[in-house]
Amino acid sequence: MPQGMTINFVGLGLGSKDYLTRAAEEALLESEKVYLDMYTGHISSELIDYLRELLKDRLIFAERTTIENNLYKIIDEASRNKIAIATSGDPFIATTHIAILLEAVKRGICVKVIHGVSIISAAASYSGLSAYKFGRIVTVPRAASMEIMEGIYRVIANNQEHGLHTLVLLDTADGGVTAQEAAEYLSRIEEKLGWGLFRDDRIAVVLLHVGMRTASKKCYAIKDLKELSLPPPPHVMILPGELNFVEKESLKMIAYCDYKMIDNHHPISTSRQRAKKYIDKTQGVLGKIRKEPVDLEAQEVVELASTYVYDSQSFLLSGRTEDSLIAISYAEGLLDCLRMLGKVSFKW
Amino acid sequence: MPQGMTINFVGLGLGSKDYLTRAAEEALLESEKVYLDMYTGHISSELIDYLRELLKDRLIFAERTTIENNLYKIIDEASRNKIAIATSGDPFIATTHIAILLEAVKRGICVKVIHGVSIISAAASYSGLSAYKFGRIVTVPRAASMEIMEGIYRVIANNQEHGLHTLVLLDTADGGVTAQEAAEYLSRIEEKLGWGLFRDDRIAVVLLHVGMRTASKKCYAIKDLKELSLPPPPHVMILPGELNFVEKESLKMIAYCDYKMIDNHHPISTSRQRAKKYIDKTQGVLGKIRKEPVDLEAQEVVELASTYVYDSQSFLLSGRTEDSLIAISYAEGLLDCLRMLGKVSFKW
Repeated sequence: MPQGMTINFVGLGLGSKDYLTRAAEEALLESEKVYLDMYTGHISSELIDYLRELLKDRLIFAERTTIENNLYKIIDEASRNKIAIATSGDPFIATTHIAILLEAVKRGICVKVIHGVSIISAAASYSGLSAYKFGRIVTVPRAASMEIMEGIYRVIANNQEHGLHTLVLLDTADGGVTAQEAAEYLSRIEEKLGWGLFRDDRIAVVLLHVGMRTASKKCYAIKDLKELSLPPPPHVMILPGELNFVEKESLKMIAYCDYKMIDNHHPISTSRQRAKKYIDKTQGVLGKIRKEPVDLEAQEVVELASTYVYDSQSFLLSGRTEDSLIAISYAEGLLDCLRMLGKVSFKW
Repeated sequence: MPQGMTINFVGLGLGSKDYLTRAAEEALLESEKVYLDMYTGHISSELIDYLRELLKDRLIFAERTTIENNLYKIIDEASRNKIAIATSGDPFIATTHIAILLEAVKRGICVKVIHGVSIISAAASYSGLSAYKFGRIVTVPRAASMEIMEGIYRVIANNQEHGLHTLVLLDTADGGVTAQEAAEYLSRIEEKLGWGLFRDDRIAVVLLHVGMRTASKKCYAIKDLKELSLPPPPHVMILPGELNFVEKESLKMIAYCDYKMIDNHHPISTSRQRAKKYIDKTQGVLGKIRKEPVDLEAQEVVELASTYVYDSQSFLLSGRTEDSLIAISYAEGLLDCLRMLGKVSFKW
């Protein structure tokens, strides 16, 4: 295979010159043409200046369309010359560059991947929250539709259900999405679904300029965040789940979070809340039924329902929420049947 | 604040010299003493040699106990001299270094954090799977107890429940944990719980030496993985969830996965399976009941149960598994009550 037939996929790290790796610089230097992806993540003007000086006219600034519309042209080039596609962060975290990689592999072109410091790990690390307690990651694109935002809200809800934190990445292209905007969008979904995740008093940890010398972080109540004026993007936001002692300490001491806000924080579990609500309701009904006379056969059904309510409570306490919901729904079915047959009378 | 009062927490990246960042080298060079954390992640002998040459006698090799037992001594040092704690990957992903950071902040010592390329992002990137479709991350420690492994198995199960991939990191200290060992441990939990996640025919993507020049990746059936002899650690393992088209292509083309194995792969959803099973069972019972004569009141209850079975199916199809389970359990309660009252007769 001739030397030229190579695409280097180069991760540039967090967007400042500081986070260039030796491997990245080496791969850029050996490439005859470097497409600099300007849309996937933030690249500071300092880094741009440095790359311009390093690569001179071999550096090509590429918008999304430049790369996506010229996929085959770029791959043709790579079959003659050694080229590079340089991306903020890691080359295969947030982009569609994987399509280029697959096409190149199909064409027998050699590909080399240089990983970069990614916001995915750096944000967890910078926040002081445990990387092992994050759930699925989401990204808020610019001008996100209500449908997209509802999807994001549901991912956050599901993470909270399991006590997990959510890393909410914010698009950096075209001026970027700010943490305020994201909070505003998500509050609209809150109004629609009302699950409580973005109630005014819920907290968000906002990280600004991660990996830059201007990096900073702070906790906000959603209501304050929406009215805030923050420095321009890149921003990212973390919605905390269950916080352990060290995480609480970290947020208080290194993210300047309000102590009371942190100590009062608990993730919202819609399923647990649901089970709790159903159990309370069914217990109320059972209490009422027990005061009225019922025939022997019906009595047996009432006792079975009581047993299931008890099981449902035990499951809930031991974290088996699904089993709890199944047990309580079964109990409700038993009682509703009795009512329909005129054996007992109650209202839910 | 005197110049000396600083701790630099330095992420060294993926363990080879290639992944040192400019910021990392700079922070190491300006430190009067560098504790090199030898236990958190893999550090190649090439990188060790390089650091030894760079830092000479300022470099101190530190085992877990060196750092954890000397926390206060290290912080005292930092109040006089500029020191560094250097860690594979990112300094605050996989370690307890956060305790040192918090103690330093309490003592008014300046802390500087240099993020590193982390296995968390690099593994997702290297696998070709979408970083946005990973759930909670787990780590298999050396000599893990059955209890720890069951916890890990449950995290994987929960990720699969939501169609998400699981990154299974494997401890690298003391010779490290191999992918075979991890598969073996998890198969024992499979025998106990029997949820099917580690059945012999399930697949795992194994990544070896991510970020090294010897890096490689491949898919295995669990049964083959357990009998395999792989190069020594560092290994990591990914248990795929739902695979989209590009992910399937990636696994086939760049991770040399068996085409049929990939096309036949589906995540295991215990909740969905459970709902499906309950629906089938209840439909069977309804079919039987409809063949027998029942009185008018009971007929009403049977019709209500049918409605709930129908709802349960619709919920299941639209991904609302919890609602599906609630509906079907309620229907079961209705029917069981009828049976207990002698209105219908059937067996589940």
